[in-house]
Amino acid sequence: MRAKRVSESLNVMNELVLPNDTNTFGNLMGGRLMYWMDIAAAYCASKHCNAPVVTASVDNISFKNPIKLGHYVHIEAYVTRAFNSSMEIYLRVRGEDTLHQFTYDSNEAYLTFVALDPNDKPRSVPEVIVETEEEQKRYDGALRRRQLRLILAGKMKPNEATELKALFAE
Amino acid sequence: MRAKRVSESLNVMNELVLPNDTNTFGNLMGGRLMYWMDIAAAYCASKHCNAPVVTASVDNISFKNPIKLGHYVHIEAYVTRAFNSSMEIYLRVRGEDTLHQFTYDSNEAYLTFVALDPNDKPRSVPEVIVETEEEQKRYDGALRRRQLRLILAGKMKPNEATELKALFAE
Amino acid sequence: MRAKRVSESLNVMNELVLPNDTNTFGNLMGGRLMYWMDIAAAYCASKHCNAPVVTASVDNISFKNPIKLGHYVHIEAYVTRAFNSSMEIYLRVRGEDTLHQFTYDSNEAYLTFVALDPNDKPRSVPEVIVETEEEQKRYDGALRRRQLRLILAGKMKPNEATELKALFAE
Amino acid sequence: MRAKRVSESLNVMNELVLPNDTNTFGNLMGGRLMYWMDIAAAYCASKHCNAPVVTASVDNISFKNPIKLGHYVHIEAYVTRAFNSSMEIYLRVRGEDTLHQFTYDSNEAYLTFVALDPNDKPRSVPEVIVETEEEQKRYDGALRRRQLRLILAGKMKPNEATELKALFAE
Amino acid sequence: MRAKRVSESLNVMNELVLPNDTNTFGNLMGGRLMYWMDIAAAYCASKHCNAPVVTASVDNISFKNPIKLGHYVHIEAYVTRAFNSSMEIYLRVRGEDTLHQFTYDSNEAYLTFVALDPNDKPRSVPEVIVETEEEQKRYDGALRRRQLRLILAGKMKPNEATELKALFAE
Amino acid sequence: MRAKRVSESLNVMNELVLPNDTNTFGNLMGGRLMYWMDIAAAYCASKHCNAPVVTASVDNISFKNPIKLGHYVHIEAYVTRAFNSSMEIYLRVRGEDTLHQFTYDSNEAYLTFVALDPNDKPRSVPEVIVETEEEQKRYDGALRRRQLRLILAGKMKPNEATELKALFAE
Repeated sequence: MRAKRVSESLNVMNELVLPNDTNTFGNLMGGRLMYWMDIAAAYCASKHCNAPVVTASVDNISFKNPIKLGHYVHIEAYVTRAFNSSMEIYLRVRGEDTLHQFTYDSNEAYLTFVALDPNDKPRSVPEVIVETEEEQKRYDGALRRRQLRLILAGKMKPNEATELKALFAE
Repeated sequence: MRAKRVSESLNVMNELVLPNDTNTFGNLMGGRLMYWMDIAAAYCASKHCNAPVVTASVDNISFKNPIKLGHYVHIEAYVTRAFNSSMEIYLRVRGEDTLHQFTYDSNEAYLTFVALDPNDKPRSVPEVIVETEEEQKRYDGALRRRQLRLILAGKMKPNEATELKALFAE
Repeated sequence: MRAKRVSESLNVMNELVLPNDTNTFGNLMGGRLMYWMDIAAAYCASKHCNAPVVTASVDNISFKNPIKLGHYVHIEAYVTRAFNSSMEIYLRVRGEDTLHQFTYDSNEAYLTFVALDPNDKPRSVPEVIVETEEEQKRYDGALRRRQLRLILAGKMKPNEATELKALFAE
Repeated sequence: MRAKRVSESLNVMNELVLPNDTNTFGNLMGGRLMYWMDIAAAYCASKHCNAPVVTASVDNISFKNPIKLGHYVHIEAYVTRAFNSSMEIYLRVRGEDTLHQFTYDSNEAYLTFVALDPNDKPRSVPEVIVETEEEQKRYDGALRRRQLRLILAGKMKPNEATELKALFAE
Repeated sequence: MRAKRVSESLNVMNELVLPNDTNTFGNLMGGRLMYWMDIAAAYCASKHCNAPVVTASVDNISFKNPIKLGHYVHIEAYVTRAFNSSMEIYLRVRGEDTLHQFTYDSNEAYLTFVALDPNDKPRSVPEVIVETEEEQKRYDGALRRRQLRLILAGKMKPNEATELKALFAE
Repeated sequence: MRAKRVSESLNVMNELVLPNDTNTFGNLMGGRLMYWMDIAAAYCASKHCNAPVVTASVDNISFKNPIKLGHYVHIEAYVTRAFNSSMEIYLRVRGEDTLHQFTYDSNEAYLTFVALDPNDKPRSVPEVIVETEEEQKRYDGALRRRQLRLILAGKMKPNEATELKALFAE
């Protein structure tokens, strides 16, 4: 299975915030944004492994700035690292006001997807080739985030999470 | 401001999985589920504080079992603890196959909401009164999860997270 | 086939009124509400009989108070009585303004569902066990409402509707 | 206020049944159909009185034949009679399979709408001029149906419903 | 295969403009209108040939007047002419303000559909019988529009388009 | 008003084809695709002129290959040329099957948008700076397409369309 560059599955998605996507403040609802984030990330993951994928987990998301009605949601999705049958996808989400040429941060997120074979069983996925410093940094952090996920899911004991200690030592 | 019991804002929501909510496996898409989870939790938070609320963060979510087309999504939302202007909401999500009388776990999640005043500024929210052992356990864990959120958002240094060490010591 | 208690299939559903659900007055459209009522009732019916169900009829509905944009629709669905292959479901629909802690009546309704077997033919459903005075009252009235439905559908002559006369004598 | 002919506000609506409109049998869900019926009838009522209207009530509906995925829903809406500030609308709903040139009955229904003035108060509506025998028949029956509605809503005593007795005597 | 009259497949469709259908000016978005136009025309085409149809092309559309939120979209669809396995459909789209009894032009359009057999291959469709002067005019122009389409799609050389010259000579 | 490069407003959009977007063949409906095309092009136009825009016209579109359920729609939008207050946007639409790493043409289209000032009147837009040969080619053809639009809308006589003759002479 040929390893693939991050840029080969890079995905960019733009969505317009319509009235039904907003809360009573006229801002994009968190849940609606997560719906788009999931689709943007799934496309990236599916393009990396050329197989159907399902969402396995979503890491902690903090919403910084609300995205307004009539603005655009700009989502960039990059694969960061592959683990056997799973891939971690990094999302950068921004709001864009095309009238005032103003772009602002909404959030960053890490989603994990599992690739499935025709019998709906996990299948292996290609390795990720990193080419930039930023890609390398996300690649390195992926192991630490994976350990945190396993601990939070009760599948790993904190004292076994050797990489995670790096987070606390930062 | 009168403190409130968890049961006063408890929310139960049932949704039917329709074709457009599913991926190519005929299972509920993660993003669609997060959309419903956000609405279910926002209702619970808004009912606790009697104010409009916005989603501030979503903790790590692991999807255990896929929910099938035609099954029902059963979401229970409980407030766990209040912090000045924010509330943590616990969600328990299950799938239900009414034909075979079979209910299965999908995921658990913690979402945080901020209450806003008429000028869109954070306003204080009522304290939470716990009445059961389970509510007490979620109340106690809320501080630890809050510290993890602050660390992950880069707003707290790991060595200041006294409560979080409890997680690693568990 | 084991008879079942009303509480075993009780369903509670909360929906948020979004802009696209409203008419030019900013109130929930009657048709949108009926869509949610049908899903809430179908879930209850399907849970009672553990079979797929289809809507057979909807009784007269009077809309009392409009439900506003941003409010929640609160639907409670109870099975009232079973007739061979059909079940009558009672719905109580209220609007809820979480900000002002105000809940108001929208309407009450009776929907009838038919349970189907794998060949899409009607199949028998469990008897209903009533436990409260209110459940008993709805159980007793079900026969009368059924006769009214049959008359309105042209399947029964008014003078054969012995139970319905009770309505006129009330 | 000029009286108007039934034909002046006649409305015809065709909708395509898409996957998300169907239940597990691949048939149009009752709730989705009621959503379309409400919009079709509201248009007819609004066209008759040239004012915004809200749904006041829906009479008993019996669903005869399921409408299949990919078929069209054909709705005809006629005003039957006006009562001060309200109008009764008659709907005839049929399914159409364009491939096999087959049209089948789904249901008939009577919906009542109230016209509102700019202060959201009921305002009077034009009289209905009937021109055909069928229109006359629906006009005559309207009073009887109105009495039944008032009784079912608890606003009239059965023994005062002089017209309704005609139904039982039919 | 029996030729059919235009009136046999005439389709009328009315849609209500809801908040999510509008742009930041509160007017119907062009894309949403094209979605409805496609469904209205497909129904007409499918009714003419009694076969499933797919959209082959859409001719130049100019949007004249914006249709406002709360107004109705009124679409009339007529088959103009058949060409072996394809049919040209003419659409007249108007906006309607029922409150002020005001109807205004939105656009006119020509869409072409291809009829398919059970193997998804084009199949022949019935001839069109014209009965009115307007139908005749649209029938005559269809050949010219077809040549323009073929030229624009690069399937015909301008100097072979004998009929199109009539357009330039008009 | 500063002229802008084509690349400054380039827009890429990816959408997943879900069940409700498809016809009875499991292929993307033409109308649904046009809805996405309109949003993708509007974003590009609005980004070029930093003003709200409305769709003025859509040129002839020929659908080449159907896009399948579960595939992605890949839309690229480029501004080609500006005319006072209007901009022509070129769209290239392709389908993508991520599983089989297969991308195929769906259609190409030209849409025209008008920029509006705060009083909803047309306002002038920046000139377009072309940088590649392909951009130059689309820039040159824009005048010819504009003349064709004016003729088809009855706003120009064919014999005045000096540029259009170039099309016939090609």
